Amino acid sequence: MPSLELVSKNRCFRGEVHKYTHFSTSTQCKMTFNIFLPDTALSQKEKAPVLYFLSGLTCTEDNMITKAGALPYLSEEGIALVTPDTSPRGVDIGGEDSDWELGASASFYVDATQEPWKANYNMYSYVQNELQQLINATFFVDSSRVSIFGHSMGGHGALVLSVRNPGHYKSVSAFAPICHPTHSNWGRKQFTAYLGEDVKEWAKYDATELVKLYEGPTLPILIDQGDADRFYSSKQLLTSHFVVAVEANDCPIKLESNMRPGYDHSYWFVQTFIKDHVAFHAKHLRSE
Amino acid sequence: MPSLELVSKNRCFRGEVHKYTHFSTSTQCKMTFNIFLPDTALSQKEKAPVLYFLSGLTCTEDNMITKAGALPYLSEEGIALVTPDTSPRGVDIGGEDSDWELGASASFYVDATQEPWKANYNMYSYVQNELQQLINATFFVDSSRVSIFGHSMGGHGALVLSVRNPGHYKSVSAFAPICHPTHSNWGRKQFTAYLGEDVKEWAKYDATELVKLYEGPTLPILIDQGDADRFYSSKQLLTSHFVVAVEANDCPIKLESNMRPGYDHSYWFVQTFIKDHVAFHAKHLRSE
Repeated sequence: MPSLELVSKNRCFRGEVHKYTHFSTSTQCKMTFNIFLPDTALSQKEKAPVLYFLSGLTCTEDNMITKAGALPYLSEEGIALVTPDTSPRGVDIGGEDSDWELGASASFYVDATQEPWKANYNMYSYVQNELQQLINATFFVDSSRVSIFGHSMGGHGALVLSVRNPGHYKSVSAFAPICHPTHSNWGRKQFTAYLGEDVKEWAKYDATELVKLYEGPTLPILIDQGDADRFYSSKQLLTSHFVVAVEANDCPIKLESNMRPGYDHSYWFVQTFIKDHVAFHAKHLRSE
Repeated sequence: MPSLELVSKNRCFRGEVHKYTHFSTSTQCKMTFNIFLPDTALSQKEKAPVLYFLSGLTCTEDNMITKAGALPYLSEEGIALVTPDTSPRGVDIGGEDSDWELGASASFYVDATQEPWKANYNMYSYVQNELQQLINATFFVDSSRVSIFGHSMGGHGALVLSVRNPGHYKSVSAFAPICHPTHSNWGRKQFTAYLGEDVKEWAKYDATELVKLYEGPTLPILIDQGDADRFYSSKQLLTSHFVVAVEANDCPIKLESNMRPGYDHSYWFVQTFIKDHVAFHAKHLRSE
């Protein structure tokens, strides 16, 4: 187990926000994450359920935890929140930082198979396996009560991780997720770079394609989408494709999808509905 | 009236966040502010009461509105929020950006009388007069229902503006305010630069000195301070001096001052108590 280095610790609501760095074997570089721990977990009174949040393009581990306004509700519910970074950093790949849609901050949460990315860009394994093992081994959390959510590229990540790992997550939710990346420029561009030209390989990381094959157990999904979101209108998100795929597959998925008039793609939108998302996860994390 | 230039507009909760720039006659440069307008004001159904928030050292107009988590409560209450920048910017004063405690982001909300600051560093007049006249003339707000709050240097600003203008604000509150700047390094350093060596001039911008002379009408004040705040322990804030001054003056001030165990000087602290502060102001803004 790699050792964690504490970067900062701040009291917030009835708990603490900690920032840590650690060397990741999945990404072969130093990774950073934040964790909110409720007092009940800090005092080892009660193992906290854990919510993972995956952020979108251009973001780091900080955007959601500082801007989404989730902590009052997580504190109230006694739920831990983990916000990983969105990609490896500083891994000496040429052009890593030159394109906001590829490389740093744009991992798309896949395990890359292509050069020059494959040694480091393994964020699927990092989030699904390494980070969660580290969290479970280090903090007073309940590894059997885990849910996941995300925004945009991170909404895509949350949907993919949950649908590919039946039973692992109690619930999944997303704000303006990229739903059908093999059919939008956000997806095709990155999958070509990270996964190569073979489109069959892309389907492993496409929520709409994956959900067609999902067989259970019941997975509750909540999606919120703003109708003033320019990435929605430019067909980068394709929410309707995911809804149609869920409806076509007579599978145990319970999907609630909301179109929100007037809201865009920003954290102004995310914060507006964060209380609903925390309540949704709390209900499923606390159910027997 | 100077013309406003709209920079951005985002729907958030039941309202919108707008960012504007305008040329200020007080500071002789372009200034930027954010305003949250509840739907009731946007639709001209009801003139919104207005809360002004003054930020601290190193901050801009964005820190509080993006990080403090105030909007759910302001939306619920139908109250507008205005977050001005913390200083003039780009006014071509040598060293303006080189010291985080002086110049850009460090106006201390005074009207400077000394070179090279006096042509631009007039944030007292900007916030108290120019900005409020602009807001009242432009938006569907109730100019008779105005309150103010702030953080650190901005808490100092909020206290000074409210005590110097009896009856103008319905209420004032502060997170970890600089309370006695003529007696702390945060204060002496800036007042020397902006106001000169004459300590009598400094008292005009010192909440503890001003409150000794306050005569009414009743001013409700709420202060929250974290006891793990390193600027509190290094005696930059001197909350107790302000409390003693209020108690010594048998004046119509109603002060509630809370010491919060474990909290520091950051926005993690501010967001923890923001709901209380909005509720405090809402009560006074809505009272007859």
